[in-house]
Amino acid sequence: MGKQIVECVPNVSEGRRLEVVEEIASVVKATSGVTLLGCSSDADHNRSVITFIGDSEGVKDAAHRLIERAVALINMEEHQGSHPRIGACDVVPFVPIRGVTMAECVALAKELGAKVASGLNLPVYLYGEAATISERKSLPTIRHGQYEGLKEAIKHPGRTPDFGPAKVHPTAGAIAIGARMPLIAFNVNLGTSDVNIAKKIARVIREAGGGLKNVMAMGVMLEERNVAQVSMNMVNFVQTPLYRSYEMVKMEAKRYGVPVIGCEIVGLTPVDALIDVAEHYLQLEGFSKEQILENRLYE
Amino acid sequence: MGKQIVECVPNVSEGRRLEVVEEIASVVKATSGVTLLGCSSDADHNRSVITFIGDSEGVKDAAHRLIERAVALINMEEHQGSHPRIGACDVVPFVPIRGVTMAECVALAKELGAKVASGLNLPVYLYGEAATISERKSLPTIRHGQYEGLKEAIKHPGRTPDFGPAKVHPTAGAIAIGARMPLIAFNVNLGTSDVNIAKKIARVIREAGGGLKNVMAMGVMLEERNVAQVSMNMVNFVQTPLYRSYEMVKMEAKRYGVPVIGCEIVGLTPVDALIDVAEHYLQLEGFSKEQILENRLYE
Repeated sequence: MGKQIVECVPNVSEGRRLEVVEEIASVVKATSGVTLLGCSSDADHNRSVITFIGDSEGVKDAAHRLIERAVALINMEEHQGSHPRIGACDVVPFVPIRGVTMAECVALAKELGAKVASGLNLPVYLYGEAATISERKSLPTIRHGQYEGLKEAIKHPGRTPDFGPAKVHPTAGAIAIGARMPLIAFNVNLGTSDVNIAKKIARVIREAGGGLKNVMAMGVMLEERNVAQVSMNMVNFVQTPLYRSYEMVKMEAKRYGVPVIGCEIVGLTPVDALIDVAEHYLQLEGFSKEQILENRLYE
Repeated sequence: MGKQIVECVPNVSEGRRLEVVEEIASVVKATSGVTLLGCSSDADHNRSVITFIGDSEGVKDAAHRLIERAVALINMEEHQGSHPRIGACDVVPFVPIRGVTMAECVALAKELGAKVASGLNLPVYLYGEAATISERKSLPTIRHGQYEGLKEAIKHPGRTPDFGPAKVHPTAGAIAIGARMPLIAFNVNLGTSDVNIAKKIARVIREAGGGLKNVMAMGVMLEERNVAQVSMNMVNFVQTPLYRSYEMVKMEAKRYGVPVIGCEIVGLTPVDALIDVAEHYLQLEGFSKEQILENRLYE
């Protein structure tokens, strides 16, 4: 299963001119030791999410080149879109997947931040686990006022960037660079067509409602199947594993006499999130990930 | 998680002279593209089990060299041990782990068999999934009469080897080469100190007792913990997944009012065996192994 895997998920402020997005993503393909996993663009948001994995050095290198290209090709003076943003390359998170610690991803974010600030004259805000100020853990605080508002706000002491000038770049704005846990999109389908039940369950199982830490949830309707769903974002599967939110939804659904009819994982998941579920279900004693045959290949 | 993984688990008829075992295992370390996972010797059995993984060609090459070395260093005329055996290198199974089919492992077994027969003048029996005669699927049939008895028995039509002379090698005997599924040692601990309950459960949940296909089971006592255990060998986790035997033990234990207090996996398991458990528990709909981030690394 490889030695070291870091995931990097830059979001760039271009989701309409796909040839530009293609050119920005192409620098990732050209970096050795790095694999491009996906690139999805949203025209309404006018924003694209580029996902790639590799070892620390490869990923840092690819991210640096990607930022350079985005700064060269995107002009924030002309940018419009429904998603909040502060710059051409708006946000770059490093995500520890295997054989790498969160501390190492934080170090990566800081190294890249320093390099980008001096090389491109770009204000850099450290966010997530890399934040140096607790209010900057979350992106909305950093993005407050967006690109346009930041021109003035950046002069205020509380908005001073971690690296680079206290002045937005004339075309590329600013950037947030950070580190976070992998995010798993995990949905639980209910045996009911009443979306209000899904909404009620979502409200009580999420962290914000006094439920599980590291869980964001909302109730939605799968119209084509006529099924109500509790749709969750698991933002720290190590601290709050998938089985815990699954059981919590099941338990809350019981009071409405509603069964869980299935679940889905949307997009990618680290294999460890599933191994944790198996360990729990089988009540495994003394199990070590060293016992997984595939993990022995690269020792 | 790598491209192609074949596991190979040769058993050699030497478990006392550890320097000889070490020398035999050393040829595996010297083969490129192959990783030695373990080597365990049993003095009573006078037998060692050597485990390694790699791609098809690497594993075939390492197995060939290992057999040559075992034939050179082990004299069956002097061999004594409590485990049934027919030759210096007694049995060589190829096991598909990832990116390789059972049919490819059968082909590997046949290629190696032909090579070993002509190069070393060794009678070769194909066994397991590689067997050409259904009675030879299981090793006890092939080993009937053992090394000593085979000298005469090999002349009978029913015992003609698949490759090589119908005459045992003067010092190395004969060899069984084959293909099989990975084997998972999976134990379920019961909340009782009555080993008879574990034995009763074992008898009904195993294939031989009208229980689950691909499951061998026995009841044993964990003396140091005073806990009775159903100890299982899962010989095909794809057809008969771990969760099915876990639930079956739990269900049968209920009639004695006994709970399952924990489980253990002894030694190695393919990661897919655990992913299957997670998929079952979470009732996952439409999940694909492509969604596992680590699997995307080597595409």
